Amino acid sequence: MENFNFYAPTYFAFGKDRENDCGELVKRFGGSKVLIHYGGGSVVRSGLLDRVKASLQKAGVPFVELGGVMPNPRSGLVYQGIELCKKEQVDFVLAVGGGSTIDSSKAIAAGVVYDGDFWDFYQGKLIEKALPVGTILTIAAAGSEGSPDSVITNEDGMIKRGATGDAIRPKFSILNPALTETLPAYQTACGITDIIAHLYERYLTNTKDVEVTDRLIEGLILTMKTEAPKVMANLTDYEARANIMWAGMVAHNNIVGVGRSQDWTSHQIEHELSALYDCAHGAGLAVTMPAVFTYNCKHDVMRFAQIAVRVWGCQMDFANPERTARDGIEALRSFLISIGMPKNFAELGAREEDIEKLAYTCCYGKGDEGGEIGGFVPLKQSDVEAIYRLML
Amino acid sequence: MENFNFYAPTYFAFGKDRENDCGELVKRFGGSKVLIHYGGGSVVRSGLLDRVKASLQKAGVPFVELGGVMPNPRSGLVYQGIELCKKEQVDFVLAVGGGSTIDSSKAIAAGVVYDGDFWDFYQGKLIEKALPVGTILTIAAAGSEGSPDSVITNEDGMIKRGATGDAIRPKFSILNPALTETLPAYQTACGITDIIAHLYERYLTNTKDVEVTDRLIEGLILTMKTEAPKVMANLTDYEARANIMWAGMVAHNNIVGVGRSQDWTSHQIEHELSALYDCAHGAGLAVTMPAVFTYNCKHDVMRFAQIAVRVWGCQMDFANPERTARDGIEALRSFLISIGMPKNFAELGAREEDIEKLAYTCCYGKGDEGGEIGGFVPLKQSDVEAIYRLML
Repeated sequence: MENFNFYAPTYFAFGKDRENDCGELVKRFGGSKVLIHYGGGSVVRSGLLDRVKASLQKAGVPFVELGGVMPNPRSGLVYQGIELCKKEQVDFVLAVGGGSTIDSSKAIAAGVVYDGDFWDFYQGKLIEKALPVGTILTIAAAGSEGSPDSVITNEDGMIKRGATGDAIRPKFSILNPALTETLPAYQTACGITDIIAHLYERYLTNTKDVEVTDRLIEGLILTMKTEAPKVMANLTDYEARANIMWAGMVAHNNIVGVGRSQDWTSHQIEHELSALYDCAHGAGLAVTMPAVFTYNCKHDVMRFAQIAVRVWGCQMDFANPERTARDGIEALRSFLISIGMPKNFAELGAREEDIEKLAYTCCYGKGDEGGEIGGFVPLKQSDVEAIYRLML
Repeated sequence: MENFNFYAPTYFAFGKDRENDCGELVKRFGGSKVLIHYGGGSVVRSGLLDRVKASLQKAGVPFVELGGVMPNPRSGLVYQGIELCKKEQVDFVLAVGGGSTIDSSKAIAAGVVYDGDFWDFYQGKLIEKALPVGTILTIAAAGSEGSPDSVITNEDGMIKRGATGDAIRPKFSILNPALTETLPAYQTACGITDIIAHLYERYLTNTKDVEVTDRLIEGLILTMKTEAPKVMANLTDYEARANIMWAGMVAHNNIVGVGRSQDWTSHQIEHELSALYDCAHGAGLAVTMPAVFTYNCKHDVMRFAQIAVRVWGCQMDFANPERTARDGIEALRSFLISIGMPKNFAELGAREEDIEKLAYTCCYGKGDEGGEIGGFVPLKQSDVEAIYRLML
């Protein structure tokens, strides 16, 4: 196991009606004037936004608001949010929504206290200072409610990039599974897929002998395998929603990723798809993961065989472990299709003729000279092109 | 799943040589004068204490020291520590040792800022204020490095009781698996047993549908099942030590116990044994757990069958699930014996003629009127006596 630091001081308030505690939590974590940041539609229609405002008013905390966050959140709204916070002297950003809203909130929180262009952070600069952020989560998916990460799409070229820094780890996150019960099946499945991807990206490691994190990751994927069919059969199954929501946080606050190298290849390759075609991130991952794993399988057949046996219930083929490894990848593919995810480029709305461009942006979009991606297997542009072709 | 809060803001510095960071960490978390609290022997002989002092000196943090913590830490030393801290105006307690040293440090930290007798906290009063505590862990066992709990034995009557409160959750904990490599086999196995008990006590719940925590707990027990034989075969196996050490923290900071009722029967019943006979806590648990689980098995046969199949690899007997449930308990017993743990009262140094007294103290020692223990199955004195008899 490699040396590591783990520090995840987010306060989690989990369960029914917990959004009503947001006013007190903002005060507890030092907020005296709040930006409520959200997407639109459902947060307003469901009455959630009104309950949030009522809780802030009850706690005597003034607020301004900024809606309009879209999936694959854009840099334009981040600039607006930064201006608004500066003008209104906001000292706390409260995200009400899913991963996109939280990521946009984190970008605003970092940008307000930074003299330069916030996009610098998405070009590799570590975020060391930010306004405190709190979240009220409405989609179990991104894990941003417990993570120090944010992903934003720059409208100048539609480039999707991530930034990180402990300063943007939420001070508190309110997780009420009931808030996710109104999510349509497709978005629910996209979230489940994203959570599974966060687990696979940590599972695919070159660090030996990290049994504890292997076992924890397997336990979380097994949870998704058990709970996903329940929620797809009954979208208002609170217990299944609760298991998925907590698993989604644990999957991504990095407690199951410490002490080992991680991968993130599927995320990097998918980001180009959702940036260019504006497809749902989870849907993109559903098409990307089996292709990446198939391409990388030979790099560590036993690792893929292990997850096949322990998670997907495949019988170990002792004469031919690679067959078991591939059975596990096919089992993942079948599972994702069973919850309604797309299986190829066509279903995603992606185009074969864009492959070269996608692979180029993926490998060179950050302006790196190297042009290589991948934490598990180093991949060049030609490898990435081959992976995109496996999705056809 | 039940509503819950989860807040575990301990900073973990994990890996080789990390004790050398303790001076900087004390400063980061607000310490300006430190009590170094430890047991004795090995911490001094190994040179660890010298390295700790060197790190504090390098960071410019003055310190006083108090050694002499014994297993099943005593109230007498806590009183001494409180006096010393007051006299020396200490504002940070640094525990260097295992669970006993950490628990003693937490008691001191709470007692220093409390006007009454610190033992009040061990009679049920919540700890709401304490000096900050940091730890350098030398035994993977108690999980106290990441928990808000402390267990102390009152020398007046040799009564062992626990206290709790977020104020005593360590600000930082340094986990260097190499520091545990000099532990003898017996103590190592006691630690492993304690970790397994923390997991079982959370697994045995009456809350339905908490798949995520079930799976995480199973993953951690599977880790112990895999790594324990490695470390027992080679006490200096760093990787096995590292897996066990991290699993021990995750097992007890409560991330795998949220949203569900918990048990703690085995701990309550064991506490009387280690208080009266001064046996190792883990050794007491090795004898206690199979007896408690056997006695409680019929309360939820399917829960015991589930862990038997998922963790211990038992074949499910679909015609007779209770047989599977009992097979799982026997598998646990065999596993504990295989790592060198005692299997009955005699091996533990306990006496049949004390059973009535043990059961009485267990049920009435806190002065409760009810006299009932147990979070999974309510147990009266007669039940507890019957459980002790199963250990003969």
